[in-house]
Amino acid sequence: MIVGLGTGSTAAHFLHALTARMQSEKLAFRGVSSSLACTLLAREMGIPLLGVGEISRVDLYVDGADEVAPDKGLIKGRGAAMVGEKLLAEACDKFLVIADGSKCVDTLGKKFPVPVEVMPGAVFIIERRILDLGGKPTLRTGAGKDGPVVTDNGNLILDAAFPAGSDWSALDQALNALPGVVGHGLFLKYAHKSTVLIGANGTLRTF
Amino acid sequence: MIVGLGTGSTAAHFLHALTARMQSEKLAFRGVSSSLACTLLAREMGIPLLGVGEISRVDLYVDGADEVAPDKGLIKGRGAAMVGEKLLAEACDKFLVIADGSKCVDTLGKKFPVPVEVMPGAVFIIERRILDLGGKPTLRTGAGKDGPVVTDNGNLILDAAFPAGSDWSALDQALNALPGVVGHGLFLKYAHKSTVLIGANGTLRTF
Repeated sequence: MIVGLGTGSTAAHFLHALTARMQSEKLAFRGVSSSLACTLLAREMGIPLLGVGEISRVDLYVDGADEVAPDKGLIKGRGAAMVGEKLLAEACDKFLVIADGSKCVDTLGKKFPVPVEVMPGAVFIIERRILDLGGKPTLRTGAGKDGPVVTDNGNLILDAAFPAGSDWSALDQALNALPGVVGHGLFLKYAHKSTVLIGANGTLRTF
Repeated sequence: MIVGLGTGSTAAHFLHALTARMQSEKLAFRGVSSSLACTLLAREMGIPLLGVGEISRVDLYVDGADEVAPDKGLIKGRGAAMVGEKLLAEACDKFLVIADGSKCVDTLGKKFPVPVEVMPGAVFIIERRILDLGGKPTLRTGAGKDGPVVTDNGNLILDAAFPAGSDWSALDQALNALPGVVGHGLFLKYAHKSTVLIGANGTLRTF
């Protein structure tokens, strides 16, 4: 079995639980990482990895999300890993989204902007286009280096705040169509193969 | 005036003509390059350049194309520069497409595949998706290094042959929506600001 491994604090809980079962039950699987952060954690935990460049499909992909809507639409990318993550969402047969109740929203865009990964040479052109689309773009700054965050793929992040109630499907297509945009954090195409598992107050519910 | 400069043998003719007029008429403009090849040629010719990362718009973009359809739809990317080129098509107020008659087709896909620029880690996943979309992908090989061509952006090229008469608009959207696809050579969104200039047998015609 090939398992796509997510990025972020919730996905890290899954990696810990998976490692415990791998050791106690001798589970036979290989992981595929969604980011450098994920690769480092998986190596530390002894999870055997396949390179994403070596595979054309994944059985199951497990990851968290920043926002989860009732129709299973997601916003991801607070960790700047949404391009590697969306590649696993594309490649997987089943996508298990794990989250706590605080991630549930009635409509996307309530709490988080849409992270848009942009080639360095395209930033000003894409900022202008995001404004045209009704969004407010902010170039993401990090720590450990001066200036903007650089992603695992060598690109920059524009966090694009759109009003709650925006036409997310139209925005998904419009952002996809922009040259210089490598990917973004709206995950709308994967509901048909997604199960959402919400943990809240010691209970679990799925939809 | 800011002028976007294309890549390829036809665009090189334009750069030569532009340089001649720049010298004889003291034209005041700055160029913006679409590729490393274009930058090298422009520097050699003394054309003053702005970095694409410094600008948010371009007045005029002049470039060739591999195929030109009657509705001004284009296939570009034989030189693997279509992502930088499409960024200029996006950013420009006017797009002048220059070509000889051999580039004119009644429908796209007659002579050329659609070059798809893909992150290295996504190649097998995207190959599978291009097959799902009815295309035949071929990983492009170059010269000067072993193995596949690597683009100016550090990515690979899948030349995706689709049947003539394919639904290009649907394919454009489907390719745009694939994570790991950085860009592709179908230019369908820019007809409204495009003028096509065709040279054939010593005459010129525009549409």
